[in-house]
Amino acid sequence: MSKTTVTIWNEFIHEQKDEKVKKVYPDGIHRKIAQMLGDKYNYQFATQDMPEHGLTQDVLAKTDVLIWWAHVGHAKVEDAIVDRVQQRVLEGMGLILLHSAHYSKIFKRLMGTGCGLRWREANEKERLWTVEPFHPIAKGIPQYFELPNEEMYGERFDIPDPDKVVFISWFEGGEVFRSGVTYTRGMGKVFYFRPGHETHPTFHNPTVIKVIENAIDWAKYEGATDVMKAAPNIKVPLETIRSVEPK
Amino acid sequence: MSKTTVTIWNEFIHEQKDEKVKKVYPDGIHRKIAQMLGDKYNYQFATQDMPEHGLTQDVLAKTDVLIWWAHVGHAKVEDAIVDRVQQRVLEGMGLILLHSAHYSKIFKRLMGTGCGLRWREANEKERLWTVEPFHPIAKGIPQYFELPNEEMYGERFDIPDPDKVVFISWFEGGEVFRSGVTYTRGMGKVFYFRPGHETHPTFHNPTVIKVIENAIDWAKYEGATDVMKAAPNIKVPLETIRSVEPK
Amino acid sequence: MSKTTVTIWNEFIHEQKDEKVKKVYPDGIHRKIAQMLGDKYNYQFATQDMPEHGLTQDVLAKTDVLIWWAHVGHAKVEDAIVDRVQQRVLEGMGLILLHSAHYSKIFKRLMGTGCGLRWREANEKERLWTVEPFHPIAKGIPQYFELPNEEMYGERFDIPDPDKVVFISWFEGGEVFRSGVTYTRGMGKVFYFRPGHETHPTFHNPTVIKVIENAIDWAKYEGATDVMKAAPNIKVPLETIRSVEPK
Amino acid sequence: MSKTTVTIWNEFIHEQKDEKVKKVYPDGIHRKIAQMLGDKYNYQFATQDMPEHGLTQDVLAKTDVLIWWAHVGHAKVEDAIVDRVQQRVLEGMGLILLHSAHYSKIFKRLMGTGCGLRWREANEKERLWTVEPFHPIAKGIPQYFELPNEEMYGERFDIPDPDKVVFISWFEGGEVFRSGVTYTRGMGKVFYFRPGHETHPTFHNPTVIKVIENAIDWAKYEGATDVMKAAPNIKVPLETIRSVEPK
Repeated sequence: MSKTTVTIWNEFIHEQKDEKVKKVYPDGIHRKIAQMLGDKYNYQFATQDMPEHGLTQDVLAKTDVLIWWAHVGHAKVEDAIVDRVQQRVLEGMGLILLHSAHYSKIFKRLMGTGCGLRWREANEKERLWTVEPFHPIAKGIPQYFELPNEEMYGERFDIPDPDKVVFISWFEGGEVFRSGVTYTRGMGKVFYFRPGHETHPTFHNPTVIKVIENAIDWAKYEGATDVMKAAPNIKVPLETIRSVEPK
Repeated sequence: MSKTTVTIWNEFIHEQKDEKVKKVYPDGIHRKIAQMLGDKYNYQFATQDMPEHGLTQDVLAKTDVLIWWAHVGHAKVEDAIVDRVQQRVLEGMGLILLHSAHYSKIFKRLMGTGCGLRWREANEKERLWTVEPFHPIAKGIPQYFELPNEEMYGERFDIPDPDKVVFISWFEGGEVFRSGVTYTRGMGKVFYFRPGHETHPTFHNPTVIKVIENAIDWAKYEGATDVMKAAPNIKVPLETIRSVEPK
Repeated sequence: MSKTTVTIWNEFIHEQKDEKVKKVYPDGIHRKIAQMLGDKYNYQFATQDMPEHGLTQDVLAKTDVLIWWAHVGHAKVEDAIVDRVQQRVLEGMGLILLHSAHYSKIFKRLMGTGCGLRWREANEKERLWTVEPFHPIAKGIPQYFELPNEEMYGERFDIPDPDKVVFISWFEGGEVFRSGVTYTRGMGKVFYFRPGHETHPTFHNPTVIKVIENAIDWAKYEGATDVMKAAPNIKVPLETIRSVEPK
Repeated sequence: MSKTTVTIWNEFIHEQKDEKVKKVYPDGIHRKIAQMLGDKYNYQFATQDMPEHGLTQDVLAKTDVLIWWAHVGHAKVEDAIVDRVQQRVLEGMGLILLHSAHYSKIFKRLMGTGCGLRWREANEKERLWTVEPFHPIAKGIPQYFELPNEEMYGERFDIPDPDKVVFISWFEGGEVFRSGVTYTRGMGKVFYFRPGHETHPTFHNPTVIKVIENAIDWAKYEGATDVMKAAPNIKVPLETIRSVEPK
C-alpha cells in the first residue's frame, strides 16, 4: 500500500516576523508537524506567499489529506483557492484544521456559520478530555492530556452540530471548549482540532501529534464505488410511471 | 403579540415567460403562497429583478422568516445579497428553502456542500412520509400525503447530516428523497422542503401550505438573552491563572 | 389554555435521614422545586415509599412532564414502574432527569448505555457554559452561570450522542461535563440536567430553576395528528404490486 | 492479523417448521450467511434452543461481532442473556441486527424506544438507495440495488435519530424506510439492516452479503487505550480546590 500524501499548508507569517515564534518553530509550523509525524507519510508543503498559495491543481490532486494552519493572513487567502480546496474536500480529500484556522475562509465556507469564539492569550493551562475514547481519532489517547501553556478558546463556538465531539477542553481561566470536532462534507471528512498557538511548543507534544496522525488516517478517502455526478437528469425512470397530469 | 413578518422571495422568472406556469401561478409563486397562508402573517415580497433583489437591509431587518423559491436565476443572484441573507440567518432570521432552491447560492453557502441530487420531470406521483410526526413542522400533517404530479428529486442528496429528517418522499418512478430537513446555523433555523415545481399546482395544496406555515412558526427567532459578540477577547480571566510559561 | 401538569418524583431518602440535607431541603427536594417554580404549573408529588412509588397509571396519565430526582434508591425502583414510565415517555410525556438520576433505571432504559461518569464530592465550584444559547431550554440563561459548591461529574459520560448539548460544565477541580443534553424517544422529549447535589442549595438557585422551567415548557407534548399504532399490518398496499415471486 | 470472530445468532425456528423457508435456507439462515461470507472470518453459531441460547459468557467473550436474526421467538429470549449481550456491546462488541430483529429485546434495549414500523407481506420489490456512499458500510455498494421480492417495512420507524442513515428503501407498494442505520452504544457499534425475510432468498444475494461484510469490518472493536471504569470516584482533584462551603 502506498503512503498517504499529506499536504501541510501554513500561512508561515509569524515564524518569519516574530522572534519568539521563530525560536519555537525555526523552520515553520508545517515542517515541525511533518518532522514529528515522521516518515509514515509523503509530504507536500504549501505556504501563503507561494504562487496560488502553493495549492495548485496538481498539488491538490495528489493530496490525500490537507492540514491547514493559519491566523493573521486569513483575509488575504484568494477566494479562487478556497473554491478549489472546497471542491477537493467535496470530492473526498480529508481536511484537518488547526487552532486559529477556525476563522479561515475554508472552514467558514464548509461550516456556513460565523465560527466565532471567546479567546484569551494568558499562557494558561489547557486539559483536553477525551469524550469519545472509541473514535479512531482518539486511538492511543489517554482519558485526558494537558498542555501547560496555551491560548484559551471558549464557548459559545459558533459551529453547526458536529458529527462527533471527540475532545472537550478545560481551561485554567474558567472556560470550556469543544476542541476536537468532526464533520462530513460531500465525500470529504473534516476535523477541527483546537490546540496549536504559535508562541507555544504545542506541536512538539507527542500526544498532540498522535491526534493529528490519527486524524490523517481517519480522514483519508477510502473511495466510493459508484458516486453519481453532481445533478444527473434521470430521463428514463426505473419504474413505469402511470400518473397522468390533468389537462 | 404582533404578527410574524414573512418575506417571500421568488426569482419570478418562469411565471412571466412560460405560459404553462403563468396559468398555474398568474400572480407569481410568492403571491400564491401568501394568499394560501392567509392573514396570519405580515408579508413582504421580493423578486430577483428588484433593486438589491428586493432584499435591502431594511427589508431583511424587518423579516422574521424568509422563504426562498428560485430555479433558473441562481447564478445571477449577487454575492453581496447572499452575504447579507447569510448574516441575517446567523443573527436569527428563519429561512425556508423551497424545491429548486436546493441549488441556490444561499443554501450552498449555509450547507458547505454541493447540494446535488438526481432529478426527472415526468409529472409523476410523489408521496411524502412523515418520519418525525412529533416535530413542530409535522403538526397536523398525516402519516403521509400525496402530490399527484411533481418533478422527481432523488438521493444521493449532497447535504450535511440534517438535525432532523422530517419527511422522506417516495416517487412513482422508483426514487426516494429526504424531502424535509432542518438545520441550525448560528442563531438561525433553516428548513429545506422539496415540493414545488413551477408547472404543478403544488402551492395550491393545503397540506403543503400547512407544512410551510408550521415551518414559519418553528423557524421564527425566539431570541437569546445573552449572545456573545463574534470573537470577544476576554482579557480578564474568570479564574486566577497560576501557570507560568517556562523561559 | 390549561396549566401544564408537572409530576415531581423524588426518592426522598436523604432529606429524611441526613441532618445536613434536611437543613437544605426540609420539605424535600420535590417541594422545593415546586415552590421555586411557583404557580405557573399544576403539581403532583410522588416519592419512592408511596405505593407504586406514587406513579400510578392515573398519576402518569395526568402528567405532562415528569421530573426525576434519585440517588441511593435506584436499585429499589420496581421494574414494572420503570416500564410504565418508559411507555408514557414513548407516548409523549416529557421527562427531566436531575443530577444523580443519570444512574436511574429509567434513564439507562431510555439511553441503552451504562451512563457512568467520573465523580467527586469536594464542594467545588461549577460553571455551566451555555453552548446552545438559542435553544428553548437556554432562554433567559446567560452565557454562563456559576454554582459555588457542587459535586463534580466528569467526562467520559457514557451516553449516546445527544440531539443537542445545551450546557457544558467547567469544574474547579479540573473536569468538564456535558451538563444539559436533550434526546427524543418515541413521541417524548427527554432532558438530562446535571446540577443538584442534595447537600447543596442548588435548587434554591433561580437560574437552575429557570433552566428547569424552560425544560418543562420545551418537553411538554404538543401532540401529533396522526400517529400510527405500534406495528400495523398494512394489508392493502398504496400502489399496485406487479412483482411476481418466482416459483 | 488474526481473523475477526463473527458469532451468528439465529432463532432458527422458521427453517425447522415451515417447508417454504426450509427450501430457501435448508441449513438455517445463520449457516447461509456464513457460507456466503466465506472464510474471511471465524464463525460461531448460536440458536435459541441451545442452553443459554448458545450465548455463554465464553462464546460472547470470543465474539468480535454478533449478528442477530430473529422473528417469532423474541419474547422467549431470556432477559439475563439480553443483559449479557448488552453488556458486551457496551464493552465494544459489534452488533448487526437483521430484518425482524428490529423488534428483538436486545435492539429495543439499546434503542430505548418501541421500534415499531408498518409492514406487509406481499412479495413486493424493494430498492435500497445508498444515501451515504462514502460510509465504510457502503463500500463497493452501487447507488442503489434491488431485491425482487421482500416483506415491506415502512415509516414511521420508531427509533432514536441514527448516527448515520446509510440506506433508504423504496417499496413497490408505496412506502419508504430507513433500511441501514448506525448507532454507537458505549464502546460498541450497532448496525440495523432491514432486508432478510425468511421466505425470500435475500441472504443468497451478494450485495446484501457485501453490506453485512462491510458492517462486520466497520463494527469490529478497535480498542481504546484508556477507558475509565464505570463510575470512578476521583477523590484527589487534578487542580487545587479553593472554594469553601458556607457554614
